[in-house]
Amino acid sequence: MIPANDPGFRAALDGLELVDHPVQLRQRSRDFYWYSPILKRALDGKAADLIVVPASIDEVVRVAGTCARFEVPLVVRGGATGNYGQMVPLQGGVLLDMARLDRTLWIEGDRGRFEAGVRMGDADRLAQDKGWELRMFPSTRRQATVGGFVCGGAAGVGSIRYGQLRDAGSVAALKVVTCEPTPRLVELRGPDIGKALHAYGTTSIVVEVELALAPTYPWVEMVAAFDDFAVAAHFAQALGESDGIFLKLDSLMAWPLPSYFRGLEGALPDGRHVVMIMAAKGNVASVHDLVRERGGTVTLERAYPVEAGVTPLYEYTWNHTTLQALKIDKTVTYLQTIFPLGANIEALIASHERFGDEVMAHAEFQRRFGRTNCSSLQVVRYTSDERLWQIVRELETLGITLSNPHSYVLEDKGARVLAADLQLAFKREADPMGLLNPGKMSRWTAA
Amino acid sequence: MIPANDPGFRAALDGLELVDHPVQLRQRSRDFYWYSPILKRALDGKAADLIVVPASIDEVVRVAGTCARFEVPLVVRGGATGNYGQMVPLQGGVLLDMARLDRTLWIEGDRGRFEAGVRMGDADRLAQDKGWELRMFPSTRRQATVGGFVCGGAAGVGSIRYGQLRDAGSVAALKVVTCEPTPRLVELRGPDIGKALHAYGTTSIVVEVELALAPTYPWVEMVAAFDDFAVAAHFAQALGESDGIFLKLDSLMAWPLPSYFRGLEGALPDGRHVVMIMAAKGNVASVHDLVRERGGTVTLERAYPVEAGVTPLYEYTWNHTTLQALKIDKTVTYLQTIFPLGANIEALIASHERFGDEVMAHAEFQRRFGRTNCSSLQVVRYTSDERLWQIVRELETLGITLSNPHSYVLEDKGARVLAADLQLAFKREADPMGLLNPGKMSRWTAA
Repeated sequence: MIPANDPGFRAALDGLELVDHPVQLRQRSRDFYWYSPILKRALDGKAADLIVVPASIDEVVRVAGTCARFEVPLVVRGGATGNYGQMVPLQGGVLLDMARLDRTLWIEGDRGRFEAGVRMGDADRLAQDKGWELRMFPSTRRQATVGGFVCGGAAGVGSIRYGQLRDAGSVAALKVVTCEPTPRLVELRGPDIGKALHAYGTTSIVVEVELALAPTYPWVEMVAAFDDFAVAAHFAQALGESDGIFLKLDSLMAWPLPSYFRGLEGALPDGRHVVMIMAAKGNVASVHDLVRERGGTVTLERAYPVEAGVTPLYEYTWNHTTLQALKIDKTVTYLQTIFPLGANIEALIASHERFGDEVMAHAEFQRRFGRTNCSSLQVVRYTSDERLWQIVRELETLGITLSNPHSYVLEDKGARVLAADLQLAFKREADPMGLLNPGKMSRWTAA
Repeated sequence: MIPANDPGFRAALDGLELVDHPVQLRQRSRDFYWYSPILKRALDGKAADLIVVPASIDEVVRVAGTCARFEVPLVVRGGATGNYGQMVPLQGGVLLDMARLDRTLWIEGDRGRFEAGVRMGDADRLAQDKGWELRMFPSTRRQATVGGFVCGGAAGVGSIRYGQLRDAGSVAALKVVTCEPTPRLVELRGPDIGKALHAYGTTSIVVEVELALAPTYPWVEMVAAFDDFAVAAHFAQALGESDGIFLKLDSLMAWPLPSYFRGLEGALPDGRHVVMIMAAKGNVASVHDLVRERGGTVTLERAYPVEAGVTPLYEYTWNHTTLQALKIDKTVTYLQTIFPLGANIEALIASHERFGDEVMAHAEFQRRFGRTNCSSLQVVRYTSDERLWQIVRELETLGITLSNPHSYVLEDKGARVLAADLQLAFKREADPMGLLNPGKMSRWTAA
C-alpha cells in the first residue's frame, strides 16, 4: 500500500471533490462507536488520509479503480450513525463519503430505488408522498443513509411487522462497484444480495439500493406503563403476537431506564416499566383494550409524525435508548443480545431478576423467522471490562447470546456462517487485493 | 311457540316483504351443509315457515319484537354459504333474509362500516376504490355477506398475514338488535364483540359490521409444484414465515387433490403436490427464489384479479377445495382440523404418511397467536361414519384436533370456553326466550 498523499495518486483523482484538512479527516472518520468504552480505546485516533466525495457512480468507479491500481485502502461512509466503528478506517487510506449520491431514482408501487447516500428520513417522506413508506428504519433515520443501513444495519422501527433487513423480500436489489483496476458494476438480486448486505462495505461498494416499501398507515404513538416488569414483558409479547393489530414499534424499557429520558414528562411515571408503541390509528382501541386487560395504564397517545420540536417516540428506542441514557450519565454502556426463539420472555424476565439495575432491560420486539421475538440493547452500568464479560457469560446461561457491540469485527455480530462464506467468496472476486474496509472481516484477515 | 302462519303474527308483519312459497322456503333455508353426509341426514327437510326480507334496521327491529311477542323462532340468513347448517332453521319459524340490508355506510382510512347484507366481494371492491381492501375473505366472497362472515366464519384468504377474525383489531364494531318484545340496538366494541362474533346469530341479530381494512397491494397468483409432500409442506411453512414477503394466500394441496381441479390445466402436473400462493407483486421474485431453493417449480404466475371467466386461485382453496372435489366425485367428504402450535408441519407430514389418499392433505397456512400455523380442510374418501371417526381419533394421536364440520352445534367448532361463556351470558340478556337460531348453542339448550 502507498499513502493517500502520494502525488501520483492525488493526480489520478484530479477533478474530484477531495478533503484533507486534518480536523475534517478526524471528525468524519468516526461513528457512534464511543457508546463502547472498549471500542473507544481501540478506535480513537483512527482516521482516513483523504476524503473523496463522489458526485456520481462514474466517480465512484474512478475512485475504486484508482485505489486498486495504487493499492490504497478504501472505506465507505454513509451517515456515520453506526455504533461499532463499521466505517472507521483502521489503516488510513480513502474515506468515500456518499453524501452527494443522494438521488431518489424512482418510487413505483411497493418499491423504491435510491442512490446509496439518500437519507432514510428523506426516502421515507418521498415514499409517503406516493402512499408508501419504508418498511423499517433505524432510530437514526434523520442522518442515516439507505446505503449505510443496508451495509451496517439489521432491523429497526417497523421490524415488528416486516422482520429483518436480511429477510427475503426486504431488499430487492443492490448495485455495487467492485474494487479492481477496472471496476465492474454488478446488480445483485435474490440470494446474491447477501454478498453485500450487512458486510460493512468489505466486499464491494454499494451505490444503489432498491427497497420493498410498505403501505402508509396513519400511525399513533402510545406509551403503556406497568407496575410489574414480568407483566409488562408479557404484554409487549402479546401485543407483538396480535396479528390483527398493525404495529410499527413495540419497545420495552425497565425502570430506571425511563428516568434518563427527557421530553416525555407525564408519560413515564416513577418506578414503572414502559412499553413504547406505534400502532395504526384504526387499531388504537384494541391496544387500549389489551393494556387494560393486562393491568397497565396508557400514559401517552399522540399522532405521528409529531410536531416540530417534539422528539418522536422512536428516538427513545433501538440504539437511541443507550444514547438517551448516555446524555445523562456518561458512565453507562450497553450490550446487544439475541433472545431464544420461543422462550424470549422467560429469558428476559430471568435476566431482569438476576441483574436488576446493573443491566437495565430494554427489548425491541420484532419478527424473527416468522415469530414474535425480541432482541435487546441493554443499558449497563459499566464498572470494568471483566465485569462486562461476566455479565455476558451469565446472560448466555439464560439462552441470551451476544451480538457483540464492543467489536468492529463483522463476524462478531452474529452473522450467520452461510452469509459469511458467501461474503468471503464474493470479496475474493470483487476486492481481490483486500482494500475495502480492511481489518473488519476476520475471515479475510485470517486467510 | 306459535306457528309462523298464525294470522295475528302475519298481521303484525303487515307491510314487510314476506315469502312463504314452499319451494322458496325449502331452497332458502339451506346452506352448503351437504358437504357432510352426516349433516345431510340431520338437516335435509328442515325449513323456515316464513321468510321476511327487511329493508332497514327499523324493519329488523319490528320483526325481532314481533317474534319475541309471539314466541316465534328467528334465524338470520346472509349469503347461506356456510358449511355447517349455521343458518338452517331447526324449529321452523322466521328466516330473516338480510339481502336488502346492503348499504356500505362508509369507508374511511383503514376502516369500513357495512350493513350486514353487503356481499364480501362488493365490500372488497368498494374498499379497493379507496386504496384499501378486506383483510380477509372467505373463498365464497362472491355470495357471502359481511354479516354472515362475522357470524359463521373464522378466517380466510388474507389470514396468512392478518390472522383470525377473532383477533383483536380485525372487527372494530358490531351493531346488534336484541330479540325482546321491545328490541334494543346495541353497539359492541372491543372484547364485547365476542358476544356476537362467530355465534351463528344465536345471541342477537348483527345488522352492521365495522371492519379493519388492509392496504391494497397489486397481487399475483402463483402455483408451485413439488415432487415430495414433506418438501412442499416445509416450503409452505417457510413461505408463511418469511416476514419480508407479503402474502394473501398460502395453501398446500397433496396429490391427488389437484386431479379434481378444473380450469388450471398446465399448472397442476400429474402426481405433484402444489402450493397455491397470492403474493404482493413486488415480492414475486423472492417467492421464485424460495421455490427454487426448495427444489420446486413455479407452474403458474398471473395477475390478480384474474380475467372474467377465469376461476381465481382462491376458489380452489379454503372451503372451496372440498367443493371442487365434490364436483367430480360425490362420494368424498371432508374434515376440518387445527394443528399443534410449533409442530404443525411434523403433524401434517405424519398424517399424510399415515392415511395417503384416503385423507387428502390440504392445509391453509395462517397466522394464529402470532405464529405461522395451518389448519386443514382435508378431503376424505368417505366409507362410513365409523371410519370417519376412526380417522379423527388417529389424527388426535398426532396432535391434530377436530373443529367438527359434521355438527351444527356452535360449541363443536373449537369455540373457546371464554367466548362460549360470554356468549351464553349475553344470550340471557339479548334473547331471554331463546328464540334466536334455537338448537345451535348447546349450553343454552342444556341450561
